[in-house]
Amino acid sequence: MTFTKITQDILNKLIAIAGADAILSTQPAIAAYSHDETEDLVYYPEVVAKPKTIYEVAALMKLCNDLLIPVTPRGAGTGLAGGALAVNGGLMISMERFNNIIEIDEQNLQATVEPGVITEIFIDAVAEKGLLYPVDPASKGSCFIGGNVANCSGGPRVVKYGTIREYVLNMEVVLPTGEVIWTGANTLKYASGYNLTQLLIGSEGTLGIVTKIVTKLIPKPTQDALMLASFNSNEDACASVSAIFRAGVVPSALEFMERRGMEWVIEHDGINFELKNGIEAFLLIEADGNNQDVIFGDCEKINEVLEQFNCQDVLFADSSAQKEELWRIRRTMAVSVKSNSVYKEEDTVVPRAALPKLINGIKAIGSRYGFESVCYGHAGDGNLHVNIIKAGMSNDEWNNNLKAGITEIFELTVSLGGTLSGEHGIGLVQKDYMPLKYTPMHFAIWKGIKAVFDPNGILNPGKVF
Amino acid sequence: MTFTKITQDILNKLIAIAGADAILSTQPAIAAYSHDETEDLVYYPEVVAKPKTIYEVAALMKLCNDLLIPVTPRGAGTGLAGGALAVNGGLMISMERFNNIIEIDEQNLQATVEPGVITEIFIDAVAEKGLLYPVDPASKGSCFIGGNVANCSGGPRVVKYGTIREYVLNMEVVLPTGEVIWTGANTLKYASGYNLTQLLIGSEGTLGIVTKIVTKLIPKPTQDALMLASFNSNEDACASVSAIFRAGVVPSALEFMERRGMEWVIEHDGINFELKNGIEAFLLIEADGNNQDVIFGDCEKINEVLEQFNCQDVLFADSSAQKEELWRIRRTMAVSVKSNSVYKEEDTVVPRAALPKLINGIKAIGSRYGFESVCYGHAGDGNLHVNIIKAGMSNDEWNNNLKAGITEIFELTVSLGGTLSGEHGIGLVQKDYMPLKYTPMHFAIWKGIKAVFDPNGILNPGKVF
Repeated sequence: MTFTKITQDILNKLIAIAGADAILSTQPAIAAYSHDETEDLVYYPEVVAKPKTIYEVAALMKLCNDLLIPVTPRGAGTGLAGGALAVNGGLMISMERFNNIIEIDEQNLQATVEPGVITEIFIDAVAEKGLLYPVDPASKGSCFIGGNVANCSGGPRVVKYGTIREYVLNMEVVLPTGEVIWTGANTLKYASGYNLTQLLIGSEGTLGIVTKIVTKLIPKPTQDALMLASFNSNEDACASVSAIFRAGVVPSALEFMERRGMEWVIEHDGINFELKNGIEAFLLIEADGNNQDVIFGDCEKINEVLEQFNCQDVLFADSSAQKEELWRIRRTMAVSVKSNSVYKEEDTVVPRAALPKLINGIKAIGSRYGFESVCYGHAGDGNLHVNIIKAGMSNDEWNNNLKAGITEIFELTVSLGGTLSGEHGIGLVQKDYMPLKYTPMHFAIWKGIKAVFDPNGILNPGKVF
Repeated sequence: MTFTKITQDILNKLIAIAGADAILSTQPAIAAYSHDETEDLVYYPEVVAKPKTIYEVAALMKLCNDLLIPVTPRGAGTGLAGGALAVNGGLMISMERFNNIIEIDEQNLQATVEPGVITEIFIDAVAEKGLLYPVDPASKGSCFIGGNVANCSGGPRVVKYGTIREYVLNMEVVLPTGEVIWTGANTLKYASGYNLTQLLIGSEGTLGIVTKIVTKLIPKPTQDALMLASFNSNEDACASVSAIFRAGVVPSALEFMERRGMEWVIEHDGINFELKNGIEAFLLIEADGNNQDVIFGDCEKINEVLEQFNCQDVLFADSSAQKEELWRIRRTMAVSVKSNSVYKEEDTVVPRAALPKLINGIKAIGSRYGFESVCYGHAGDGNLHVNIIKAGMSNDEWNNNLKAGITEIFELTVSLGGTLSGEHGIGLVQKDYMPLKYTPMHFAIWKGIKAVFDPNGILNPGKVF
């Protein structure tokens, strides 16, 4: 595909559509849009547009479609797979000005939001009304809900409350041709033609740009308990995970963290936590509900399971401040790792009982290829974030040998019934690994679907497949 | 599209693939496959195949694709939209011999089943291990899990536990070309390319034939309570529904039934229930969990809400026998209606707070067009089954005037934020109404997706759009 460069004439047309204040075209102005949170990748779009209305988005898309200018949609730029990078230059459409919570409908327990709303702002706004929107990625304080939809993002509470697929009911979308559709209906059930809402979720900005999102909400549980369990081995910690569910308990969060990650968080964030000798892994486990006795009962059951897996120590958070502190450890782990070393992050996901095999396999592969890793993630979902650390590796080893090691990690993941990404998406950095799991028929279907929505291939080209 | 008729030569080829015992070609043998549960529609396929292996399904599909013979996939034939009717003749592929529960994986809380497993057999099999598969349509005793997937079927417990979309993780599918793919991975989270599992769910057998289904399971709640609330008006009953959720309770079932439906069930099934004068509507409400005190607390909260909406009477089931009896009323209502009158069933779904407007509107439209209706359904999801009764209508009125009335019902549904079907699918009988909700762009996208999977248009032609 040969794309068109943005000339002064085209730039004038973009300005005519969105207004001069909404169009950035100088290198310094664009710099902030040249990267996301994926490693150290940098790609400059030629122009960034910050439209305010759906009419502007539609007009921008139509122009780019007519002229064959690549369009990269962008949320908050917190992605971890390079999905929001303008690898072909062209126009970046930033949705940052679509930042209104349009309605919180307390009768229907639904909300209508724009995609540029920061996830945590939305979570807090519905919480004020006693409602729960449970999709809370670690980056919730900065990521956009539109980016969450695009990447099928999760977070700790998915394990009990279901994925974002269960909460997004309907979306207003601008298609690459500039046409606008609503993907479905504002209903909890839907059996009326191919489900375009579900198809758009996780499509990483390759099929359309979302301009409104209708979500389901549920009553917010009033109480919770949080515990941090310590283990002498990764394997024990991981093996206990599936046993907890088998004991009949569904925690509202069940997060795994390796010692090294904990050390770096303590160092980086100055968190006051005594790390005992011999402890290698942690599980952060939350139970929630509306009845304290039931929650304590769940915690006791969890505790019994943990003891069977050689748990060394269980710390119960005894205040909301301590809960916040424990959660902060988990949430800032990605930032701490990033600040400590050059790294690559993989987002492996397997059936949860396969976690011990996955983590042991990752360490064995690392030994063979000479890399260390720090793992943490949503163990209750079988979703393990694998941070491969450059540490003592030479640039040559890092740039040339690592790919074979990552390939082995993904081969292991796939052999365990898993896949490449649970919640980060494939974007730019994982797409070369897709053939490890998917057949030419998958690619043919995906490309066929892409062509239905985007016949000229202008929208987020070069991503996913 | 001009399809090929099945000649003796082609019949011989079908027999060579599946074996003579698996191929039915005489009118009497095929009769049972000429209808489903949709009204009184009858369409004979030319031939019915009952393959036993995926290789046979793939070979049958490839042959039909090569020769342009239409293929109608069939589950148990319990559909309510005509999706399994062979409107173009051709080959029907019945999946009845794919009836194995391949594995119930108690470590991962997942199961692998074939599509011809009867839903209730699967529910019972996992329940024996303390696990819940919560998708339980009223026809659960006879429908197949494959049909549930194809139609995105629901049932009462969706309201608390989520739709079938939350439970189907991965599927083995034979495509119209005879190629076989797994749609995804056996994982609880998935962000690795367009989600083909979700696209196939609810595609009504138009994109592929499912041969294996991997489902998520959850711990089965150990206790429940069931109550039947009586109201003097449909509106009061319906208006209380959204208020129950707003009070912070999520029941495990919240079903609406009109008096007329109750009368017919009592008459038809000989159920012992005293129907008081003046009572016009009922809500059947279940709360479940692992703690009886919490469940009673939920019931009390529900009761308080019901009182605010002029609830006349609440019957608490005091034994499992009484629970079963109350559930039987709800489950056999469709059969009782069917045995009582010629009827047409619509599967409207709206945001739940719009239910009072929906049911009042349906009755007003009925008055204008001269038809009566019996409504019941999954009120907690805003999903109302509207059974239009022929009763005193002449054949002429029934055949010619009804469509305008149904059109108005769907226009109302759409105006309330809803859509045509919540869990039955569009199939044959609702497809004419699809333009009431969907634009030419929707149809273009659906047809484009269809062509990606089924370039020759052989699979379940004439359905959905």
